[in-house]
Amino acid sequence: MNAYVYGYGPEGKERLIVVDLGVTFPDMDGTPGVDLIFADLEWLEANADRIDAIFITHAHEDHIGALPHVWNKLRKPVYARAFTGRIGQLKLEEAGIPPETIQIVEPRPKVIEAGPFKVQFVPISHSIPESSGLIIDTPAGRVVHTGDFKLDGNPIVGEPFEPEMWHAIAKEGDGVKVLVSDSTNVFSPLPGRSEATLAEPISELIRAQTGMVVATTFASNVARLKTLAEAGKAAGRSVCLLGRAMKRMVSVAEETGVLKGMPGTISAEEASDVPRQNLMLIVTGSQGERRAASAQLSRGKYLGLELKEGDTFLFSSKTIPGNERGVIRIMNAFSEMGVDVVDDHGGLYHVSGHANRPDLEAVHELLAPKMLIPMHGEHRHLREHAKLAADKGIASEVATNGTMIDLTGKAPKVVEYIEAGRTYLDGSVQIGAMDGVVRDRMRMALNGLCLVTLILDEEDQPLGEPWVELNGLPKLGRSGAPLAETIEDEMTQYLERASIKVLKNDDKIDEGLRRIARQVSMEEIGKKPEVIVVTSRLTD
Amino acid sequence: MNAYVYGYGPEGKERLIVVDLGVTFPDMDGTPGVDLIFADLEWLEANADRIDAIFITHAHEDHIGALPHVWNKLRKPVYARAFTGRIGQLKLEEAGIPPETIQIVEPRPKVIEAGPFKVQFVPISHSIPESSGLIIDTPAGRVVHTGDFKLDGNPIVGEPFEPEMWHAIAKEGDGVKVLVSDSTNVFSPLPGRSEATLAEPISELIRAQTGMVVATTFASNVARLKTLAEAGKAAGRSVCLLGRAMKRMVSVAEETGVLKGMPGTISAEEASDVPRQNLMLIVTGSQGERRAASAQLSRGKYLGLELKEGDTFLFSSKTIPGNERGVIRIMNAFSEMGVDVVDDHGGLYHVSGHANRPDLEAVHELLAPKMLIPMHGEHRHLREHAKLAADKGIASEVATNGTMIDLTGKAPKVVEYIEAGRTYLDGSVQIGAMDGVVRDRMRMALNGLCLVTLILDEEDQPLGEPWVELNGLPKLGRSGAPLAETIEDEMTQYLERASIKVLKNDDKIDEGLRRIARQVSMEEIGKKPEVIVVTSRLTD
Repeated sequence: MNAYVYGYGPEGKERLIVVDLGVTFPDMDGTPGVDLIFADLEWLEANADRIDAIFITHAHEDHIGALPHVWNKLRKPVYARAFTGRIGQLKLEEAGIPPETIQIVEPRPKVIEAGPFKVQFVPISHSIPESSGLIIDTPAGRVVHTGDFKLDGNPIVGEPFEPEMWHAIAKEGDGVKVLVSDSTNVFSPLPGRSEATLAEPISELIRAQTGMVVATTFASNVARLKTLAEAGKAAGRSVCLLGRAMKRMVSVAEETGVLKGMPGTISAEEASDVPRQNLMLIVTGSQGERRAASAQLSRGKYLGLELKEGDTFLFSSKTIPGNERGVIRIMNAFSEMGVDVVDDHGGLYHVSGHANRPDLEAVHELLAPKMLIPMHGEHRHLREHAKLAADKGIASEVATNGTMIDLTGKAPKVVEYIEAGRTYLDGSVQIGAMDGVVRDRMRMALNGLCLVTLILDEEDQPLGEPWVELNGLPKLGRSGAPLAETIEDEMTQYLERASIKVLKNDDKIDEGLRRIARQVSMEEIGKKPEVIVVTSRLTD
Repeated sequence: MNAYVYGYGPEGKERLIVVDLGVTFPDMDGTPGVDLIFADLEWLEANADRIDAIFITHAHEDHIGALPHVWNKLRKPVYARAFTGRIGQLKLEEAGIPPETIQIVEPRPKVIEAGPFKVQFVPISHSIPESSGLIIDTPAGRVVHTGDFKLDGNPIVGEPFEPEMWHAIAKEGDGVKVLVSDSTNVFSPLPGRSEATLAEPISELIRAQTGMVVATTFASNVARLKTLAEAGKAAGRSVCLLGRAMKRMVSVAEETGVLKGMPGTISAEEASDVPRQNLMLIVTGSQGERRAASAQLSRGKYLGLELKEGDTFLFSSKTIPGNERGVIRIMNAFSEMGVDVVDDHGGLYHVSGHANRPDLEAVHELLAPKMLIPMHGEHRHLREHAKLAADKGIASEVATNGTMIDLTGKAPKVVEYIEAGRTYLDGSVQIGAMDGVVRDRMRMALNGLCLVTLILDEEDQPLGEPWVELNGLPKLGRSGAPLAETIEDEMTQYLERASIKVLKNDDKIDEGLRRIARQVSMEEIGKKPEVIVVTSRLTD
């Protein structure tokens, strides 16, 4: 959920620009029921009048996904290049925001002036077309913000990494003061491989199959989609794309001219008439997402298409840590159908979109920055990248979420920690990560729920017995009796013994009944549920 | 959650033996709040009078963990070798079952007679001491049940794999009719490596450190514990074990004589007085378990010990798929403390306990079985192993959970599918996976809860307004008003319009209020909560 802010000016009155507004995805472990997660923008909102512009480096969800959800709070011009911008415009339209909010700009040498900043988009290779680094020139010096990148001289779709251009960037004026750099693959010791290395092995694999071939990859990896489609075509197969995100990426890539020569594809309806040995599907859901095409196919027929014994399913992707369970579930479901599942073991069918350790070192040398701020990675990646820089004599600092760093001196200096939490999109509303909503959901999931209702009459005496409903708890306790009844019996006894002072006091009744529910449950089923007590008084 | 059953005799009256009774572990994704998961033993319980014995191959939780929870339902003699048996006895004691229930037996040539079966325990190497394969001789031929194994000629602790002995086993009588074999690493293309290869790299790593060294591994990998402790000792460090499971394994291994020459260790209390450059901790929690020592240390001080900048934390383990999130959380927490985290990248500091593909092929050749039944793996592993066997001309069959296979012919023949679900240990009670308890918990976690209480008077008229409580839902809706109040207002209007026929009918009221709660929530917050309606009638 990338969101970077650069500022320049007198302390506390700096003019600001924002780079990227991304999301991250929820999981059952920590954010059940949540739809999307993005950075808490409270500080930016409070300082919105100081923001001059928002720049989006590329169209991956972790860089652009929050834009439609938070733009209304900032209301500043957004700049992006054609492909990224068009993807963003479609998102804004869906959120009811005028698409012209995003201004499409040309890359370097075009300069965008935003307050004291002069910003250029610089083509850089990544696993999505038209990813850009930013040159951010300020009166205090030049910052290079790499965005996500790899060193790929032949990325199939989109622009290659051009060392000469980056060399020129490093030589202009006083050179690069600060490099803010992708750190994702700092632990990968070998140089990264080009997207172009995949065409041959993928083609060979598909050529060797006799049943239907289905391949999945990241929807936004347009180069991979082209490689897969061409391999299918070359093997005499009609190619069908399944999944809305994937179709959108291809159509925007063609519309904006970044994708050319993509083989023609057929619809799912047409595909169901093609003999399986002549068919290739390219589908969404490489991360095991339950609603994507891969998962749907693993559960049976989807849009009239169905996998069978002798078919082949290729994961032309890697599993992002945390998504293993979902991916493995799909693999085994296909295995049960008799489908051969091929994954990326050995990297034959997938390459990463991020610069590996030697690539990062090459960029350090190419740009010769005075300082380096690692970005895009977990803490251990940032720390390792900072150590790598320090070993080369480049001043560095690990910036955790919310860290404000002064870059005007000779070394990065932490000046402030801004409260920077997370915001959840939950259904149609945004809630704070610390609001307790998700905490309550997790407690119900872990402990189950015991619901108690009690009615008291005009004399504060219980009208009938308390009523207990359980949800997410075993029906029978250790004693063999229904747990709800055992709890009700204990509560009835408690209320019979209770003084009028207690019976007149909602808090005391709540406390007493809650304690009984938890104690009895602990004895009967060995766990303490969440308890909600509703006391109704006829006198009210 | 391994549990295998072999039977011999007239159809429907076969005498039975059970091999292993293991558990698997719950997660938030599918089993929130559950403590342990094991096979549903309904069929075995119903046929308990036909069971002659239970055999436990080794002391890993996925082979022995269910024993204390299900033994009371079967009440048959249990056989195991000394180390495994002692671990099992301690578990039974804690469950209030007499430890003598487990009979400690010697390995081959000792034969245990159980009904028509003659069973021998055969030492085999694995990542826990004293793992055993079983030779199961029946009037219909010999079955070799490998248990979990690898081909290790020097496992440091426990017995090596002895090809000569296995060769002899294959030559006795009519040879091996059926091989039932571990399949875990069938996708690992290179021969497995010996536990002994780790001593050198681990020693080098520890020798090079200047701060405190902490290492984690699987508590039951006694050989690894010895290697780690020896490496620490050799580097001039006092060694302290943290974690109950680990201490138990070491003490039982020493008590039963399988572990000899373990360096002496110090207590946590003593450790806190040792200078950090002279200290090594060996701790539980290699899989990121929240309550284990690794996680505790990642959160701060634990038993008086605390990691600091310049210390080193070694994962001498691999992360089991599905546990990545927990492990990564710990790695980043240590990174934030300035601790260098070393993991198994490249396999320098960990080897697997399972036979790789070429090792499996070597065993196929060594034992020359007529049939092979793959076990211990996900479906894709079993399927791949079956294909591997079929390629060699060995008849094979994938047996999913509950499959009953006739092994008396020339090829395995599926004869029945027995209903074989999962049982959850939830607190102190056992519930069925399909009981709906966990489903209800997950629904509350995903959708939140809306609780409605309504009181109707003697004339079936609402007494006051319905009362709504929300749990795990945002307080405010899109309209800016409290969601609970908006729902209550809609409900009040509905009840005012309701006919007496509706008001007399609890089901109709329930249905109406439930629909309103879901509709209003959808409009206000974009999600449909779980709804519980409690209607109380004063006439009752």
